[in-house]
Amino acid sequence: MTAQEIATLFEGEIVGDPNVEIRRVAKIEEAGAGDLTFFANPKYEKYIASTKATAILVSSGFDPSRLPASRLVFIKVPDPYIAFLQILKRITPMPDPFPKGIHATSLVPTSAKLGSGVSLGAHVVLGENVVVGSNTKIGPGCVLGDGSSVGEESVIYPNVSIYHGCQIGSRVILHAGVVVGSDGFGFAPKKDGTYEKIPQLGIVVIEDDVELGANCTIDRATIGQTLLKRGVKLDNMVHIAHNVVVGENTVIAAQSGISGSTKVGKNVVIAGQVGIVGHIEIGDRSVLMAQSGIPKSTEPGKAYFGTPAKEHLRALKIEAVIRSLPELAKDIEELKRSLEELRNRLSEPRP
Amino acid sequence: MTAQEIATLFEGEIVGDPNVEIRRVAKIEEAGAGDLTFFANPKYEKYIASTKATAILVSSGFDPSRLPASRLVFIKVPDPYIAFLQILKRITPMPDPFPKGIHATSLVPTSAKLGSGVSLGAHVVLGENVVVGSNTKIGPGCVLGDGSSVGEESVIYPNVSIYHGCQIGSRVILHAGVVVGSDGFGFAPKKDGTYEKIPQLGIVVIEDDVELGANCTIDRATIGQTLLKRGVKLDNMVHIAHNVVVGENTVIAAQSGISGSTKVGKNVVIAGQVGIVGHIEIGDRSVLMAQSGIPKSTEPGKAYFGTPAKEHLRALKIEAVIRSLPELAKDIEELKRSLEELRNRLSEPRP
Amino acid sequence: MTAQEIATLFEGEIVGDPNVEIRRVAKIEEAGAGDLTFFANPKYEKYIASTKATAILVSSGFDPSRLPASRLVFIKVPDPYIAFLQILKRITPMPDPFPKGIHATSLVPTSAKLGSGVSLGAHVVLGENVVVGSNTKIGPGCVLGDGSSVGEESVIYPNVSIYHGCQIGSRVILHAGVVVGSDGFGFAPKKDGTYEKIPQLGIVVIEDDVELGANCTIDRATIGQTLLKRGVKLDNMVHIAHNVVVGENTVIAAQSGISGSTKVGKNVVIAGQVGIVGHIEIGDRSVLMAQSGIPKSTEPGKAYFGTPAKEHLRALKIEAVIRSLPELAKDIEELKRSLEELRNRLSEPRP
Repeated sequence: MTAQEIATLFEGEIVGDPNVEIRRVAKIEEAGAGDLTFFANPKYEKYIASTKATAILVSSGFDPSRLPASRLVFIKVPDPYIAFLQILKRITPMPDPFPKGIHATSLVPTSAKLGSGVSLGAHVVLGENVVVGSNTKIGPGCVLGDGSSVGEESVIYPNVSIYHGCQIGSRVILHAGVVVGSDGFGFAPKKDGTYEKIPQLGIVVIEDDVELGANCTIDRATIGQTLLKRGVKLDNMVHIAHNVVVGENTVIAAQSGISGSTKVGKNVVIAGQVGIVGHIEIGDRSVLMAQSGIPKSTEPGKAYFGTPAKEHLRALKIEAVIRSLPELAKDIEELKRSLEELRNRLSEPRP
Repeated sequence: MTAQEIATLFEGEIVGDPNVEIRRVAKIEEAGAGDLTFFANPKYEKYIASTKATAILVSSGFDPSRLPASRLVFIKVPDPYIAFLQILKRITPMPDPFPKGIHATSLVPTSAKLGSGVSLGAHVVLGENVVVGSNTKIGPGCVLGDGSSVGEESVIYPNVSIYHGCQIGSRVILHAGVVVGSDGFGFAPKKDGTYEKIPQLGIVVIEDDVELGANCTIDRATIGQTLLKRGVKLDNMVHIAHNVVVGENTVIAAQSGISGSTKVGKNVVIAGQVGIVGHIEIGDRSVLMAQSGIPKSTEPGKAYFGTPAKEHLRALKIEAVIRSLPELAKDIEELKRSLEELRNRLSEPRP
Repeated sequence: MTAQEIATLFEGEIVGDPNVEIRRVAKIEEAGAGDLTFFANPKYEKYIASTKATAILVSSGFDPSRLPASRLVFIKVPDPYIAFLQILKRITPMPDPFPKGIHATSLVPTSAKLGSGVSLGAHVVLGENVVVGSNTKIGPGCVLGDGSSVGEESVIYPNVSIYHGCQIGSRVILHAGVVVGSDGFGFAPKKDGTYEKIPQLGIVVIEDDVELGANCTIDRATIGQTLLKRGVKLDNMVHIAHNVVVGENTVIAAQSGISGSTKVGKNVVIAGQVGIVGHIEIGDRSVLMAQSGIPKSTEPGKAYFGTPAKEHLRALKIEAVIRSLPELAKDIEELKRSLEELRNRLSEPRP
């Protein structure tokens, strides 16, 4: 594609020859002739003069006229990195992970409804009344329980298990080994010390544009639904308990877990190995730092760290003192001695 | 069923019309005509007067005569919540997750022994000499290794892997993605810095009435057995290492891990993301709070928190001081200054 | 085998009858006639006199002449425990987990290349151009994506998912539920609060003699490769993010996670539930203790503990003070009172 075509895609503006042909994309320091690169991080400005790229994506406010004249073609766009990623996706032949069509060994009951262009891998098992939307691809070994549904253009990697009744949206990506709809962890203690299982009668709803990492587990609700809203992204091995709600565009890093009935707001950032207790609310745009344990609701837009978690700045102050605790303890011993010495001096008979 | 039938089931007593018909169950604030509800939490007493339910389960000590007269039928039972759950299970049609019978694509060697009413899903693979008890249901994609066995009325969800020789009891529930019998993590360091694998020759034994959440992993013993005793309940992604023993009715929340050869007592409660070192004993009825790291044996009936864990009350006291450490550090600086000032005053020549 | 044969295997030396026949192996306190045992831990020296074993492996420096005369045959070798394990493997019939040959239900495209003696279990799915080396065994339900490869004599347990293009070495063991090659967790934030997926175009390379525990997840690189070098051993549910490199013979215990682009050195020991941030370096032979959170690069050969982690000895000193914080806080209160009292005394009119 030409520089002009790229500019048109992102409503950008060109400084230089609009007809140069772009064949690949590359990092600014590694790019060569025919390559498109991008400039977003000021640290890399030094490479602009020397890059061998043919064209470069820069932000709309960038002024190429302050640089020495060159044959480099500048494409000014609102967000160069995002534009770069989108061109990357267009140009690089992404391997299609699964062959087209319905594999002969997949099991599709007559009650199932498949859209056009659906790909079902080998040994896929659909239950009764399953619905799969157009162009969705389901990898080998996946099992979709009775009455479950997947929207359009979703990708489900191998060996995913979706329990009965769960609803999955469009453009969703589920990585291998994901489990959606397993029973919530609910048991009522009995007087003899054993437990009575609380029936888990609800479902899981995963909205559009969600991605779940490998081996994530999302439990079905006791009654009602466990809900991952539009645009949620989970890394590998994240655990979502029954009746949890995760708001739009919230991202959760690997090995974090959210206990039952907690409501996570939208655009929250949860780092790795975080644990959140049940029945609380995580405010919109909160940031929960790695390995934190969140014992109560958090305020919107604030950052938290620690077990139990404190506000981030407070946690940093506390941590600074913790690091010097051995010296502080010595200070206290020294203070005790000094005070005792003073006290003795005061008790001495005056001359 | 009638109120009388319910009362009879739980050896309860009726105040009101024993012949009213119950068709559904519901929460007290949402119940309508024909519904059974329950009252267990004093917070909800206000709803008793206004509920539209037809009948209500109350505890044996509850006295309806102190309330205004109503058509509400009271069923007095020893534990209203447990009774409610049991009626819920009877009345709500629980979807049967797997179709009946042996699916044509499942693989059953002639050496396998299946009880009556066994359900094997699509693509289930049984090894040689596998035993599956009556009415047990095994979902699509499960693999049971040579010589493994499952008792009666157990439910194994899709894509579970059970290694050779492992023994699973009756009324056990294994959720999707569970792995039972993988090798314990045992390696002997060699002088050249590499490791020699220690053969893992034992098995896993899972007793009756155990439930394992999605993607749990239970390692086989080096020699002997890794043992989950009767009534153990694990949430999702719990890791049990080789030669661990978990006692009766112990519950373990998501993402906790127990290292090799540790013995966990009975009726222990382990919260989420707890880690326990190897070769220790966790006393009966201990409570290990979320994200704790347990470095040594714990006493029966006591609660622990922190990494490394302390007794819970002690941990709370420590945490209270930790929260005020920045102020404490200032106090110490202030003390140093004051003491210096006093010392100087004492050194001044007396008037 | 005879004592002489064992001695020859390990270039050892015999004290006693070299022709005694060994039929089993056992712990020193449990061994009987015909058994080989070993002595490595001084705690067990007391058992040497009483053991009923026929032969015992001892270290080269051990001097049997200082013990009472007995019929026990001593085999002096450089490392008795390693020698014991190797004899254990030879003598104990390890059950072969998978039947020989290519199962009729496995799917092998004509583009696949299989070495001699390959075992493919039921319902195994190979993509296009997959290569499987000689004597490698792949369990039921495994899926190997297009262009992926496995070396010789590897063992892959059931329901493992390997994505397209990933390369796995020889004598590798992958336990059930492992996922290799899932997308790295990469998303670029957009101005409207949603995220743009960053394409994950790289692969995973797993070198020879690596073992991955059940349900581990290894993400593919964004560009280039995520790399587990020769001899790496991971316990269950370990998470390795995109572009991570793990050095030779590094061992990682259960439920630990390593964030993107971090380079872990060789012969590192990482305990359970450790979290490591992205883009740092873990020095060779570092030790990261359980549940630690590693926020920055570590030095070779040093041990670390805590969240955020400190050097181990420093962490121990800090922890000792933390345990006594409630008393320390009281000391400070007492110091304040005493100082105030002194100050008052000094202000009193002198007699």
